[in-house]
Amino acid sequence: CLTQRFFLSLFSGAGYHSESKAKEYKHVCKRACQRAVDQLKAGALAVEAVAAALVELEDSPFTNAGMGSNLNLSGEIECDASIMDGKSLHYGAVGSISGIKNPVLVANRLLSEAQKGKLSAGRIPPCFLVGRGAHDWAVSHGIPPCLSEKMATKFSLSAYKRNKRKMELAEKMDTGHNQTKKRRQSSENENGSGCLDTVGAVVVDLEGNVAAAVSSGGLAMKHSGRVGQAAHYGCGCWAENACNMNPYSTAVSTSGCGEHLIRTMLARECSAAMQSEDAHQALLEAMQNKFISSPFLASEDRVLGGVIVLRCCRCVEAPPSQNIQGILVEFLWSHTTESMCVGYMSAQDSKAKTHISRLPPGTVPGQSLAIEGGVCRLMSVVE
Amino acid sequence: CLTQRFFLSLFSGAGYHSESKAKEYKHVCKRACQRAVDQLKAGALAVEAVAAALVELEDSPFTNAGMGSNLNLSGEIECDASIMDGKSLHYGAVGSISGIKNPVLVANRLLSEAQKGKLSAGRIPPCFLVGRGAHDWAVSHGIPPCLSEKMATKFSLSAYKRNKRKMELAEKMDTGHNQTKKRRQSSENENGSGCLDTVGAVVVDLEGNVAAAVSSGGLAMKHSGRVGQAAHYGCGCWAENACNMNPYSTAVSTSGCGEHLIRTMLARECSAAMQSEDAHQALLEAMQNKFISSPFLASEDRVLGGVIVLRCCRCVEAPPSQNIQGILVEFLWSHTTESMCVGYMSAQDSKAKTHISRLPPGTVPGQSLAIEGGVCRLMSVVE
Repeated sequence: CLTQRFFLSLFSGAGYHSESKAKEYKHVCKRACQRAVDQLKAGALAVEAVAAALVELEDSPFTNAGMGSNLNLSGEIECDASIMDGKSLHYGAVGSISGIKNPVLVANRLLSEAQKGKLSAGRIPPCFLVGRGAHDWAVSHGIPPCLSEKMATKFSLSAYKRNKRKMELAEKMDTGHNQTKKRRQSSENENGSGCLDTVGAVVVDLEGNVAAAVSSGGLAMKHSGRVGQAAHYGCGCWAENACNMNPYSTAVSTSGCGEHLIRTMLARECSAAMQSEDAHQALLEAMQNKFISSPFLASEDRVLGGVIVLRCCRCVEAPPSQNIQGILVEFLWSHTTESMCVGYMSAQDSKAKTHISRLPPGTVPGQSLAIEGGVCRLMSVVE
Repeated sequence: CLTQRFFLSLFSGAGYHSESKAKEYKHVCKRACQRAVDQLKAGALAVEAVAAALVELEDSPFTNAGMGSNLNLSGEIECDASIMDGKSLHYGAVGSISGIKNPVLVANRLLSEAQKGKLSAGRIPPCFLVGRGAHDWAVSHGIPPCLSEKMATKFSLSAYKRNKRKMELAEKMDTGHNQTKKRRQSSENENGSGCLDTVGAVVVDLEGNVAAAVSSGGLAMKHSGRVGQAAHYGCGCWAENACNMNPYSTAVSTSGCGEHLIRTMLARECSAAMQSEDAHQALLEAMQNKFISSPFLASEDRVLGGVIVLRCCRCVEAPPSQNIQGILVEFLWSHTTESMCVGYMSAQDSKAKTHISRLPPGTVPGQSLAIEGGVCRLMSVVE
């Protein structure tokens, strides 16, 4: 296809994907890729396409975002989501929002409302809303509410019951130990990595703009009101078009343990790292030095997370004909979780590719990492 | 005093301080300095002292934090606060919390609970809680609730009524104009800078640890659920002890328009800038390039904010006696708002100094900046 160029990459979570679940996750990723590509082909900007991909991922009952999100300690669903537009550098986020089927649409609406400028009496529009206020703002801006009960699935409800029993058992076993011992001991039983299947996507559009978005139901059994990286500026997603200072446009989306991703500001760190020449090496070093060995997480024994990264620049090779322009897209993913399910698709592909990336055999989740990716040249005819 | 060394600096907001209000603000700053110094003299760590200073600032009905906070669009008080410990690099934050007199104490409690390690069943403790969940967590951790009505003051209630009338008038006047025109026009009437009097502090303690904290009632007439920079990691405050990579310990606290401070991540940017040799020049450049002229705020005509910055390192000069150690503390403040009220005090001072910093005459708030500060050598006898 010589008339259009775009690329998108997305994930349905870094965590643990059993072989039996793998098929479902791949299927969701494919549908989300297709949905965003349909929009891009119709001329949508990166930020619109990335939101469209996220809606599809949120709507899947298999992902921990929107429909089928993890339940919190009180048995409720509270979601986080954010979106960033690399062109305007605007950003929108919602945290701990209940009763909205697609949290990413609220984040996207906050972004687009903020782009319109000030509110009446010179008030500055918000970029981040939480809780009940976020819900009410969404509804007053035409986003329909959704009964929370409808967002829970058979799977999320049974996981909640299982987790609750596990927690009660752990607390019973700990009786008699002092607080410190209790906490240390229980950390050894940790196996929460199966519950980190949050979703995210990165896109470069026809005009070369990048965008990124992320959405999450948060950690299972989190405290009510807890906000994770998906609603945290610089932590859940990042997108910056190339500019004077930056030769590359970059977009990043993260998944994993929210607190680890917040305290390391992983999305922004990876985006900044992507400005150095060797993308693969830069991401490897960022994941190693700014995440696994980060001084901010010195007290953590296992640092769990994953990222997808996209960077692009104009092709350096002279095109065969003067009216053909090309961009070079490098896309990478890396994770310290056992596995990560990714999907990607370019203007040149007839269908999405999906892949379950796994840590090398014998390595320890939270201490080792996997890194993979590819390169793609996108050409278009200049009119 | 040769046996103790510490320093703290704090502000009661960047905004507009009339001569009549100046006395009150200075008085509050003095009390807060004294309270923190009392704690430091008793051996408190930086993070405890910074929280103590913030409590005093929150308790003042004159500041826009805790008691006397701005009311939101619905006439309610919703507060943001965060705290960071430069030694452990742990962080705690609450957003949009109601019914708690001292939001900084909840942030501080989140920080200290997170330092204890994992919760039962391997759950990761939260670093950021919002809304009702944050309130309930605070109460369950022994922080007493406070009736919201008690937190409103005569001043905040009358400001609310005045703002509400102003808003209704602005919206009435705009009838007939289209949405874009309406927004542009109203931005010219903006004069919200009087309502940015949030509070913050930075401290270095006896052991040389740094800490920073910030607390805010948010913008007047903000939407319910809106979270500002005071609850945003990297935006409201930052503290990092010196380490292999960083020769200086740095602590930063910010005030001003939350959305501007979030999108520029001003606290973290200033902290990073402070690692270069000339602190004054580095802060000047950071405020100019990363704030006023930031590409992230390209569409804003007036960029409103202020920072206080502290950095310290061991004194390079050889001490007169081998058992005397010294640290060099540089403290700076800078703001683009009309004025900023600061206070500071060191182990060598018998009482706090306070100062209302103002933009140079003839300069435009949001486009120009003021920058001031000082240096102080703190000596202590090594036992």
